[in-house]
Amino acid sequence: MLSARSPATGLLPLPAVAQTDPLPSWNDGAKKSAILDFVKRVTADGGSDFVPVPQRIAAFDNDGTLWCEQPIYIQGAFTFDRVKMMASQHPDWKTRQPFAAILTGDMKAVAASGEKGLMEVVEATHSGMTVADFSKTVAEWMATAQHPRFKRPYIDLIYQPMLELLTYLRANGFKTFIVSGGGIDFMRPWTEKVYGIPPEQVVGSSGVTKFQIAADGKPHLLKEPKIDFIDDGPGKPVGINRFIGRRPILAFGNSDGDQQMLQWTAAGDGARFMGIVHHTDAEREYAYDRQSQFGKLDKAWDEATKRGWTIVDMKTDWKTIFPFEH
Amino acid sequence: MLSARSPATGLLPLPAVAQTDPLPSWNDGAKKSAILDFVKRVTADGGSDFVPVPQRIAAFDNDGTLWCEQPIYIQGAFTFDRVKMMASQHPDWKTRQPFAAILTGDMKAVAASGEKGLMEVVEATHSGMTVADFSKTVAEWMATAQHPRFKRPYIDLIYQPMLELLTYLRANGFKTFIVSGGGIDFMRPWTEKVYGIPPEQVVGSSGVTKFQIAADGKPHLLKEPKIDFIDDGPGKPVGINRFIGRRPILAFGNSDGDQQMLQWTAAGDGARFMGIVHHTDAEREYAYDRQSQFGKLDKAWDEATKRGWTIVDMKTDWKTIFPFEH
Repeated sequence: MLSARSPATGLLPLPAVAQTDPLPSWNDGAKKSAILDFVKRVTADGGSDFVPVPQRIAAFDNDGTLWCEQPIYIQGAFTFDRVKMMASQHPDWKTRQPFAAILTGDMKAVAASGEKGLMEVVEATHSGMTVADFSKTVAEWMATAQHPRFKRPYIDLIYQPMLELLTYLRANGFKTFIVSGGGIDFMRPWTEKVYGIPPEQVVGSSGVTKFQIAADGKPHLLKEPKIDFIDDGPGKPVGINRFIGRRPILAFGNSDGDQQMLQWTAAGDGARFMGIVHHTDAEREYAYDRQSQFGKLDKAWDEATKRGWTIVDMKTDWKTIFPFEH
Repeated sequence: MLSARSPATGLLPLPAVAQTDPLPSWNDGAKKSAILDFVKRVTADGGSDFVPVPQRIAAFDNDGTLWCEQPIYIQGAFTFDRVKMMASQHPDWKTRQPFAAILTGDMKAVAASGEKGLMEVVEATHSGMTVADFSKTVAEWMATAQHPRFKRPYIDLIYQPMLELLTYLRANGFKTFIVSGGGIDFMRPWTEKVYGIPPEQVVGSSGVTKFQIAADGKPHLLKEPKIDFIDDGPGKPVGINRFIGRRPILAFGNSDGDQQMLQWTAAGDGARFMGIVHHTDAEREYAYDRQSQFGKLDKAWDEATKRGWTIVDMKTDWKTIFPFEH
């Protein structure tokens, strides 16, 4: 900076500072004010709530917090498409549940197979290849698959107000992390491009990976058909501790799977921000909470209400939901 | 940048650029030149080896690469001290191996218990408390314990030339990571202060951690007596993939436990730098390689020689070893 002369000397006019709104897709009101106020407090050098830059850690759930999770998790749609793509190499799937039900589109039978059945499908469709090849498969699928209702690529279904929040936090010295129950290898191929969140700031569920030197002498990382870590519910603070090693000062989620992450964030010293996205807009997106199969918001809702966490009402608090609305 | 006019116009003199040596503790020679040349190539915008900033990932082993690992790993010394500190609460340790051998200082019997015995000791001494309490225990120990030969706190036994290398890389847009077989919870309390490497850039071995709401309603992360992940040998590329999600373009190690990390780094596209610290200075530090119990350098040495990786000879390449020599 060359402008060493202070405006206070009166020798130079104050530069015109643009009073741009950092969160233009958020309607003015209590929720937007709560965010702006929190950031102002933790960045006010000398203030009692000041937080040094390295400790400005922000953790965001992904499904239902940064992008759409209805009518099923997007990784669920990917998994089912993978079953269809891989079926010819697995003739036994025609008679084996829940693979057979996925192939015939019998979603009731799929659901009946329970978590154990679904984990088996995830393990079968997310393994048997290198991490690099899986990454390519995800990128190809993301470029071609479409959301059944919006008829758009899934990466179009990210929330514009949350993109603005991520950008605003980063501009204020925050390091933004994803802390998702989704697969780490499923998210990393596109989070940097879409959210500006680099691979090393993505925490998620993961499978066992094995290092192997191939016949050509080249080393590979192979995805094994075994889940290693589920970054959901009580797994989220565990994942945060393992990957980040510091407690966030801000966390945003939308479901009971985020409750422990929010509790963990809230329990730290100093200024804290706990946010929940409440899906209330059936017209522009979806409306669901306590009874939903995906992104159920029940216990976390009760705790948020009791403890005064910020509950964002999509319908009333968000001017825009998706970037394509512009 | 306001200086839009090129010096080539002849209208402005070239600004005086201080020609300070970024690696003053490295003797001039092939090794230092190899580092400087690599960094120059990957940062030369428009050059054929240019690497964009987000992909400038550098991975460093810790024990024997960034700090001393003799006569035993520093975390080993911590573990043995923990056994002594905890012994009064564990009367059975007096007769149970390898605990009894540690208490009487019978290192031969300790070694005879093998890896299984040592893992049992690590599990017993690194659990039964919250992550926060363990972190405090480590910080207290680091502030008081002394190296048996140098009679100084262990954090004094870091390598000055490597500190300069870390700083130099960061000044050139690199993100520096530790990728160590050591415990992640043992390293994180001090890596930021000592190496300038924040907790979220420390990859290491870890135990199982459990999220629990205590009787007072506060959430805690408890360290369980069970090892979860060993970030050593083939575990290093696995850890790099899990925590960082990108392949490093530079990696530095010193032992066979780093061989796969170096192979993984070498197998990427574009310019690469693989470095090995060879302990050759018995006078100023230690001299060991193929036969050493800690930090054995045998297979990785052969591969490094064959493939032309940079082997740093501590005795001839380093002007200074420890910061306290100044």
